[in-house]
Amino acid sequence: MTQPIKDRRELANAVRALSMDAVERANSGHPGMPMGMADIAEVLFRDHHKHNPANPDWWDRDRFVVSNGHGSMLLYSVLHLTGYDLPMEELKNFRQLHSMTPGHPERKDAPGVETTTGPLGQGLANGVGMALAEKLLAARYNTDEHSIVDHHTWVFAGDGCLMEGISHEACSLAGTLELGKLVVFYDDNNISIDGNTDGWFNDDTPARFKAYGWHVVENVDGHSAEAVSAAIDRAVAVHDKPTIICCKTTIGFGAPNKAGTAGVHGAALGADEIKAAREQLGWKHGPFEIPDDIRAAWDAREKGAAAEKEWNERFEAYKAAHPDKAAEFERRMKGELPENFDGLVEQILAKLQGDDKKVATRKASGASIEEFAPHLPELIGGSADLTGSNNTNWSGSVDVLDDAANGNYIYYGVREFGMTAIVNGLYLHGGFIPYSGTFLVFSDYARNAVRMSALIPTGAIHVYTHDSIGLGEDGPTHQPVEHTTSLRMIPNLDVWRPADKVEAASAWAEALKRRKDPTALVLTRQGLPHLDKTQDQIKAISKGGYVLKDAEGGQPEVILIATGSEVGLAMDAAAELEGEGKKVRVVSMPNPGRFLEQDESYRESVLPNAVKARVALEAGVTYYWWPFVGEKGKVIGIDTFGASAPAEDLFKEYGFTTEAVVSAVREVL
Amino acid sequence: MTQPIKDRRELANAVRALSMDAVERANSGHPGMPMGMADIAEVLFRDHHKHNPANPDWWDRDRFVVSNGHGSMLLYSVLHLTGYDLPMEELKNFRQLHSMTPGHPERKDAPGVETTTGPLGQGLANGVGMALAEKLLAARYNTDEHSIVDHHTWVFAGDGCLMEGISHEACSLAGTLELGKLVVFYDDNNISIDGNTDGWFNDDTPARFKAYGWHVVENVDGHSAEAVSAAIDRAVAVHDKPTIICCKTTIGFGAPNKAGTAGVHGAALGADEIKAAREQLGWKHGPFEIPDDIRAAWDAREKGAAAEKEWNERFEAYKAAHPDKAAEFERRMKGELPENFDGLVEQILAKLQGDDKKVATRKASGASIEEFAPHLPELIGGSADLTGSNNTNWSGSVDVLDDAANGNYIYYGVREFGMTAIVNGLYLHGGFIPYSGTFLVFSDYARNAVRMSALIPTGAIHVYTHDSIGLGEDGPTHQPVEHTTSLRMIPNLDVWRPADKVEAASAWAEALKRRKDPTALVLTRQGLPHLDKTQDQIKAISKGGYVLKDAEGGQPEVILIATGSEVGLAMDAAAELEGEGKKVRVVSMPNPGRFLEQDESYRESVLPNAVKARVALEAGVTYYWWPFVGEKGKVIGIDTFGASAPAEDLFKEYGFTTEAVVSAVREVL
Repeated sequence: MTQPIKDRRELANAVRALSMDAVERANSGHPGMPMGMADIAEVLFRDHHKHNPANPDWWDRDRFVVSNGHGSMLLYSVLHLTGYDLPMEELKNFRQLHSMTPGHPERKDAPGVETTTGPLGQGLANGVGMALAEKLLAARYNTDEHSIVDHHTWVFAGDGCLMEGISHEACSLAGTLELGKLVVFYDDNNISIDGNTDGWFNDDTPARFKAYGWHVVENVDGHSAEAVSAAIDRAVAVHDKPTIICCKTTIGFGAPNKAGTAGVHGAALGADEIKAAREQLGWKHGPFEIPDDIRAAWDAREKGAAAEKEWNERFEAYKAAHPDKAAEFERRMKGELPENFDGLVEQILAKLQGDDKKVATRKASGASIEEFAPHLPELIGGSADLTGSNNTNWSGSVDVLDDAANGNYIYYGVREFGMTAIVNGLYLHGGFIPYSGTFLVFSDYARNAVRMSALIPTGAIHVYTHDSIGLGEDGPTHQPVEHTTSLRMIPNLDVWRPADKVEAASAWAEALKRRKDPTALVLTRQGLPHLDKTQDQIKAISKGGYVLKDAEGGQPEVILIATGSEVGLAMDAAAELEGEGKKVRVVSMPNPGRFLEQDESYRESVLPNAVKARVALEAGVTYYWWPFVGEKGKVIGIDTFGASAPAEDLFKEYGFTTEAVVSAVREVL
Repeated sequence: MTQPIKDRRELANAVRALSMDAVERANSGHPGMPMGMADIAEVLFRDHHKHNPANPDWWDRDRFVVSNGHGSMLLYSVLHLTGYDLPMEELKNFRQLHSMTPGHPERKDAPGVETTTGPLGQGLANGVGMALAEKLLAARYNTDEHSIVDHHTWVFAGDGCLMEGISHEACSLAGTLELGKLVVFYDDNNISIDGNTDGWFNDDTPARFKAYGWHVVENVDGHSAEAVSAAIDRAVAVHDKPTIICCKTTIGFGAPNKAGTAGVHGAALGADEIKAAREQLGWKHGPFEIPDDIRAAWDAREKGAAAEKEWNERFEAYKAAHPDKAAEFERRMKGELPENFDGLVEQILAKLQGDDKKVATRKASGASIEEFAPHLPELIGGSADLTGSNNTNWSGSVDVLDDAANGNYIYYGVREFGMTAIVNGLYLHGGFIPYSGTFLVFSDYARNAVRMSALIPTGAIHVYTHDSIGLGEDGPTHQPVEHTTSLRMIPNLDVWRPADKVEAASAWAEALKRRKDPTALVLTRQGLPHLDKTQDQIKAISKGGYVLKDAEGGQPEVILIATGSEVGLAMDAAAELEGEGKKVRVVSMPNPGRFLEQDESYRESVLPNAVKARVALEAGVTYYWWPFVGEKGKVIGIDTFGASAPAEDLFKEYGFTTEAVVSAVREVL
C-alpha cells in the first residue's frame, strides 16, 4: 500500500460520484450499493483484479460478478474508469433504451460484464460455477512447468443475496468443492429495501459460512482500504476453501442525510443531497467529470495489456510443449465443437435407429450422452441427487471431487436452483458444455435460473426426466402437468420432448450444437416403443415436427399431433383407424416452438391448412395445443393435477387410450 | 419413561414392518426413512404429540409435518396405529389409484395429514407458517386466565430438506420470529438418493442453525427412545427459539444388508431382505398384521378424546368470559368470512368506481387491502422486502415482531420461496387469510410453492406487482414476459390481471371469497386510467371477462380483447377507430381462465362466434391469446425479453401504441 488512505478514498469517490450522478440523471436506480462498496471496488480493481480492459475475453482474466446487481453503476463506473470500451456517454445514458448500461448488468450489453445479475443470489451461484470451471481447467491443463489457468473469481453480494435460499445451496456446495479461488465480498450494511434488516435478517453470517467449510474473514471495515486489502491478502492465501470477506459498510456512504438508510437503496438522491454529498466527500467536480489524475490512477489498460502479454508468452510456451492439450484447451475456450461433429451426429442417429428396443427417453438420453461424451471433454454433467433416475451419468463419468483433472460429473445434492445457476456459471466461464438433471416438476425450483439461461444467454442443457403422470406412484407432487408448456413460454429456450431414442439423440445433438443458447430436454420415466423412420424423417426431427406416418394414398382426413410418450399412442390409434378405412397422418412434434419457426411451406407440408380434423395428444395441459388443432380440433391432455398410481392405471384414468383417441377422431371427423 | 426400551423398539417396529410391507406390496416407495425415523415417531406420538385421532380438525391439536414426504409410510403407519380413520386396507393400497395413501402425503386424501409434502424443504417452511400462526393466535386470544391456543408444531426433515435453499429462507426467518413451539427433527442419516452425502453435503448443520438463532440439540441417538425423549423435553423447555433436534439415525434401520445405504432410500427391499429384517428386528408377525397389545399401546383415541374434552371445557369457559373474542376466534378457525361480506364488497366497489383518478393497479390493490382489512382480523400480509413497491401494507399494518397480539404483517426479507410456503402453512393452520407480495418476475423463485398452494390446496393470495415492461428501467431481469401465462397454466390457480381500481378490488373480493383455493393478483407498477363502468359491468368482472365498451349500433365488426394495462390502450384505439366509422367492441378480460369456465351463452354474448376480426393485447407472450383471436385474429404482445428504459419508451418500442393497434385492426378487418 504505497498510496495514502485519503487518496484512495478520492479514487473511490469517483465511483460514488458517477453512480449518484447517473442515477440522478436517469431518475431511477440504486445509488446506495455503489456508494457503499466503492472503497472495496477501488482496492480490488486497482491492486488485485487481473484483467485487460482491451480484451474482456482474455481467457485467464479474473472474473468479477456483482451479485447484488442493482448496484450496476458500481460496475459500469469501474469498467469505464479502468478503460473498457464503455464511454462516458453510456454512463450518462444509464437505464435508457438501447444504452450499454441497463438497470441491471447484462452480459450482452457491455464489455466486462461477466454475467447478467439482478435476481438476487444467482450471481453468487454463477460465481461458484466460474470458480469451479477454473479449478477443473487448471487441474486438467496446467502442468508442473506451465500454468495457463490461474485466476480468481470475485463476487460482490449483499444482504439480499444471502437471504435468498440459492445462497445456501451454492455456498454449501462451494465449501464441499473447496473452491479456494472464489472470494466473496459480503456488503454487510444492515439495510435492505424494507429498512433495517434487524427485523428479518439476524443470521450470524460468519458462523453460517464457517458451517459450510468456508474461510471467513470477519469484521472488515469496508471503508478502510487497508483493512480490505489485508482481507484480500488473507483470502488469496487460503487455497482449499472459498473465502467470504464480511465487510461492514454504510449504504450510500457519503450522502450526509440518507447514508445508512433504506432511502438511499433504490432511489435517486435528489439535487440537494447530491450537493451535500459532494461537500461531505470533498468531490469538487461536476456531474460525469473525472479529473485526469484520478482517471490515470484507475486506468488499468497498460497493466492489463502487460499481464495478458505475459500470459500469451506462457501460453505459447505451453503450446510448444503440449500441442494437443493446448489445441483442446483452445477449442474448448472458443466454444467450438470438435471437427466433423455433424458426421458424428449422423453416425450416432443411424446406429440408434437400428436398435428397435423399447426404451424410456431418459434412458435414451443417457445413451445419447454415452455416445457423445467420449468426443466432448468439455461436457460436464450432474444431477440434483437423482443421478440414477435422470440417467445423467455415463460410463466415463468422473466425480469432480475425486479427480479434478478428469472430473466431468458434479453431484449437486438436492439443490435444483443452485445447480442451474452454477451450470450457467460453468458455461459463462468458458471451456464447458454443462448439463444438469432433475425431475421435470422440480424445474419449478430452478425456474428463474432457467429463465436466466435464456436471457443471459448461456448454452446450458437442462435435462428433465419423469415428465408426466407416467412417473406413476410418486403422485401429483412429482407429476408435471403444466411444466412443459410453461418452459415453452420462456423466450429463447429450446424445449424438446422426444418420442424415442432417435428423437432423443437428435434433441441432444441440437442442444450440443446450440452453443450460445439453452435447451431443455423433457424425458419420460417409462419405456416407449421404437418408431420406424426413414433417413429423411430422421433429418426432419431437427425441424421440430415432421410427418412420422402418412395416410395411405393422398390427403389425410385427420391429423394426429403428438409429442414424447403420446406418439406411440397416436400410432396405435392411427393403425386402428386405418383398419376402419380412415386416412390418418401422424405428426411427431418434439419441439413445437422450433416447428413454428420453420417457413410456411414446410409447416403447410406437415399440417396442411385444408385438414381441419386434428387431434393433439400430450400428457400435460391442453391449452398449448389449441392453436395447433384449431376450432374444430380436439386435444387429449391433462388440465388437473395427477394422482398416485402405477403409470398404466393413470394413463387409462386420464383418457390416454387408443379407444379415447379413436373416439376423439370420430368427433372431429 | 415407564416402558423399557425394548418394548418401545417393538412398538417402533410396527411402523417399520408396515412401511416395508406396504412398499413391497406396491413395489414402489421409500422404506428407508420410515425405518430410520420409526423410533423417533414412537416417542413423539406416544408421549408428546397432542392430538385426537377422532377429530383431526381439533383446533388446538399439535401439528405434525413430514417434510421428507417420501417417508409417507411412516405417517400413514402412525395415523393408522394411533386410531385415525385410515384402515389397514388403505395401507395395503399404498400408491394405488383412488387410495387414501398416495406416494407422498396429500392433505386432501387422508385425515391427519396436515399438509401435502414431497417437494423437499417445503413442509419445513409450512411448519414455520403453522408455528407462526399458533404464536400469533395465542398472543391475540389467550388471556391470563384462559389459554385456548397452546400447541406445538413438529417437523420431520431429512438431508434433502436441509440442502434445499428454502430451508435456509424459512429457518433463518423462524429464528428471527422466535418460534419457540416449532420443533424440527433432523433425520441425520448421511444418505441421500445419490449415496453417502459426504460427496455433496458437509454442512455443520448444528452450527448453521445456531447461526440462525435456533436452539440446537445435538448428537441425539435417533434410535434411543430415552435420548429422543430427553431431547424433546429440552426442546419444549425453550420458549423463545425454535429447536432442531439433530438425530443420528440409520436409514432403513433393521434391514440387515441394506440399512445405511442409498439402496434402501427409494426402492422396495425385496422378499429376502424383508425376511431378514423381520428376523433382525424380532418382528414375528405377517405382513400388515399388528398384534393387539402393540395396537393398544399405540392407540391414542382415549387420551386424545380426553385432551380435546378438557380443551372444550376450557374453551367454554373462555367463551363465557370473552364472548366477542371467542366468536371471532371461532369464525376465523372455521374459515368463514364476516357476515354480509357481499354487501361490503358491493359498497367498496361502488365507492371506488366513483373515484376517477388514474392509479397503478398495485396501488389499487393497496387501496383494496385498506378497505377490506379493517373487517378481517384474519388477513395477514407481507412482502419479500418490497413492501413499499408491492403496496402490501396498509394503515393498520402491525409488524408481527413488534406486537404478536395485533400483528398482521410479516417482513419476510428477500425470501420469495420461503414466504410462499410459509403463507401456505399459515393458511393450513387455520385462522388466517394470508397474502404475500413480490415482483411478478420473482414468482419464479416461489414457483413450486405457488403450485403447492393450488395442489394442497390453500386459500393463499399471491400479490405480484410490476407485471410487465411497464416496470421500466430495472430492465429484462425484472420484467415478466412469460409469467402471467405460466401462472395461468397451473391448475386450480385463479389468476387476475385487473385494468383499474375497480377491477383490482373485485379481484381482491374474489380472492377473499375463494377460501379453499389460491389466487394470484397480477398488478402494474405504472398508473392506469379509470374506466367507466355500469353496475352490470362491475358485477360482470367476477365472470373473468366482460364487454367494457360495445360498438355503437349493433354487432361489432371487430373485437379488442385486453387485460390490465392494455385495456386503456384498447379503449384509445377503439375511440380512434370509431372516429373512422368502425364498429368496435372492447372486452376487458382480467381473468381469462375464469371466463372460459362460464357457460357458452355468456361467452358467446361477450365474444360472438360470428365476429372473427379480433385483436388481443397483453404485454406478455402472445401464445396465450391465439385461441381467443382465432386464425384470422392478431395478438399484440411480447415474445422476447424486455429492455431497460422508461416505461413509455418501452411500450412504444414494443408496439403498444394506438397506431399499432389501429393498424392491426385494419389487417384483421
